[in-house]
Amino acid sequence: MLVQKYKDMLSGKSVIRQLSEFATARGKEIGYENVFDYSLGNPSVPVPQEFTDRMIHLLATRETSELHGYSPSLGITGVREAVAASLEKRFGLPYRKEHIFMASGAAGALAHAFRLVTEPGDEILTFAPFFPEYHPYVDLTGAVLKVVPPDFEDFQINFQAFEEMLTPKVMAVLINTPNNPSGVVYSSETLKRLADILREKSKQYGHDIYLISDEPYREITFEGVEAPCVSSFYDNTIMCYSFSKSLSLPGERIGYVAVNPACKDAEDMINMCGQISRGIGHNCPPSIIQLAVAQVLDRTADLKVYETNMNLLYKELVELGFTCVKPGGTFYIFPKALEEDAKAFCEKALQYDLVLVPGDTFGAPGYFRMAYCIDTEKVERSLAALRKFVQETY
Amino acid sequence: MLVQKYKDMLSGKSVIRQLSEFATARGKEIGYENVFDYSLGNPSVPVPQEFTDRMIHLLATRETSELHGYSPSLGITGVREAVAASLEKRFGLPYRKEHIFMASGAAGALAHAFRLVTEPGDEILTFAPFFPEYHPYVDLTGAVLKVVPPDFEDFQINFQAFEEMLTPKVMAVLINTPNNPSGVVYSSETLKRLADILREKSKQYGHDIYLISDEPYREITFEGVEAPCVSSFYDNTIMCYSFSKSLSLPGERIGYVAVNPACKDAEDMINMCGQISRGIGHNCPPSIIQLAVAQVLDRTADLKVYETNMNLLYKELVELGFTCVKPGGTFYIFPKALEEDAKAFCEKALQYDLVLVPGDTFGAPGYFRMAYCIDTEKVERSLAALRKFVQETY
Repeated sequence: MLVQKYKDMLSGKSVIRQLSEFATARGKEIGYENVFDYSLGNPSVPVPQEFTDRMIHLLATRETSELHGYSPSLGITGVREAVAASLEKRFGLPYRKEHIFMASGAAGALAHAFRLVTEPGDEILTFAPFFPEYHPYVDLTGAVLKVVPPDFEDFQINFQAFEEMLTPKVMAVLINTPNNPSGVVYSSETLKRLADILREKSKQYGHDIYLISDEPYREITFEGVEAPCVSSFYDNTIMCYSFSKSLSLPGERIGYVAVNPACKDAEDMINMCGQISRGIGHNCPPSIIQLAVAQVLDRTADLKVYETNMNLLYKELVELGFTCVKPGGTFYIFPKALEEDAKAFCEKALQYDLVLVPGDTFGAPGYFRMAYCIDTEKVERSLAALRKFVQETY
Repeated sequence: MLVQKYKDMLSGKSVIRQLSEFATARGKEIGYENVFDYSLGNPSVPVPQEFTDRMIHLLATRETSELHGYSPSLGITGVREAVAASLEKRFGLPYRKEHIFMASGAAGALAHAFRLVTEPGDEILTFAPFFPEYHPYVDLTGAVLKVVPPDFEDFQINFQAFEEMLTPKVMAVLINTPNNPSGVVYSSETLKRLADILREKSKQYGHDIYLISDEPYREITFEGVEAPCVSSFYDNTIMCYSFSKSLSLPGERIGYVAVNPACKDAEDMINMCGQISRGIGHNCPPSIIQLAVAQVLDRTADLKVYETNMNLLYKELVELGFTCVKPGGTFYIFPKALEEDAKAFCEKALQYDLVLVPGDTFGAPGYFRMAYCIDTEKVERSLAALRKFVQETY
């Protein structure tokens, strides 16, 4: 007897995945270069050459037993030290290796964070618009994800709705800034207000409320945008990081959990991550990738193209009359559709070979997401299609 | 409030880990070459040069977006095809990519297998002596691991005890052959009898009982030993494989789940693995390692040293009067201690710088494990220490 809950999930196909499959199929008909595929958040810029060089150097020079051997369950010690030193230098918080747990990407990091602080039945709050995978990530732990409706004005936090939903059952609040899908970066004002509320409610309810900060887009911020360090606002912050976007290597599954050094249980929490791993088959990210990434911690891929693409799209969208919050980072933009039903809107766009994702699964019906991690040349060509679509349809 | 069950686990330190730490500390005093460290099952032979060459070639020639991009959630299609073809050729069962799910090592594979077929409260049976990590692997899913006592005669299966414990609550049976810690390979006779019982009880209880076959030591078998393919005996077999031991790269977290093509739900089960991943933060083994391993599927590291070491140890142990089943594979041997309390026995051995692991945590008190994945030269030197220890102590 197979477990029904997983069997049932097979029928619920991801909208993003379906659209991406459409784009691939359409590309076979008319040439993929003619499909304006804004569906998938897959980094489009090359991995820095230095990463490749370091990998080759490790392979060519290290003893294989050292290079490919078991990592300690919390991660390779020198790698954790390097990550801690880099975070300390950058954010001014006294990170040490005892605060760092190496994880297989942000998904691996979040899987540990949720289990650290919630039992089945406990609630985690997140804010729309939000990454839809948070639902299976949380729901399958037995905890309950509840989604605070958006502040449509600027996609910061809808504090009124948040305070109403922040009951004693809430053990953690999950944020994602810079945000997928809105591209918005939470301001210092937002983070300060959020932290104040969490401190107050922790006291009132007599239990800590943890802030889980999912930061895979941290390095992708645009000119003039302040991107504050979430952990510096709130002691009980669990940072979940991935190198997938900053180094363009999402397939290599490398990231970390960094517990704020000011969190009173920080060291225990990191050690607990090693125990959680035993239950979920985690056992650390690949050794060679840990070693290579540790040597390029402060490097990123050439991320400028995302800002170029954003500016092109934002300008055109505004000119065409879209309501649209200007992204401060990521490679996403999240405009309001030109009719109430964003699914219908995106369906019609397909006739112009524009692959857009309706906002319903992101918790913001009536909006749509464009993932502009594609070549600028293609973005430029897509603008005419977008204009034609809008002018002929609305 | 941190989750207590993980916090509680922090105090329970692994005996193997403690002994390994002792060995390292003692090595600093007297030189590690003088510590006969038989504690850890960490492969000692180099990774095949061909793997390293393939990795470097991939890094030097492939587009980084192709090389380091997201893997599909079931694994890279071409890699799954290659694994299926290799299994078909080798074992004569009609494996296709639809039966293969790429997993991060055997721990990752098992984490999926357990969740496929058990709900919280269901039972999984395994056979002593057994790999002690099975306890957290299973217990933290909410299912219950029950351990069938050993058949001390030959460390095959104690069928009488097994049949008594095989109640309707049992949804899966977990085996590990070649076995850690005994080194024993289950015979065709054992596997046939096991399969017959599972078929009969599945029918009687009105639900399938799955056989989960943990096979990381499959490639390490010794001369004259028949190592039957477990899946060929029983349709409802979920094979969990890791390349950690065959290619000596345990840190790179690469393995797979292969569901027997004869299992009626095989394709659904593989697709379900992709859903299970979302709940445990798995998201596939590293892309570059998948691609490299697919090119050396039928290669292994030079594993002969393990047999050489086994023969040296087995001969000496028998001469010294130990009761000992001759291993048919792996890099473990599991003799009976010379006093009832194996912990006391191993404690005394430490005075001769012999690091042995008591069998209690493997479900076989009174026995001890030696992991002989060390240099043959060191095994040879250890024999005198072993003889001295025995002659002076017993």
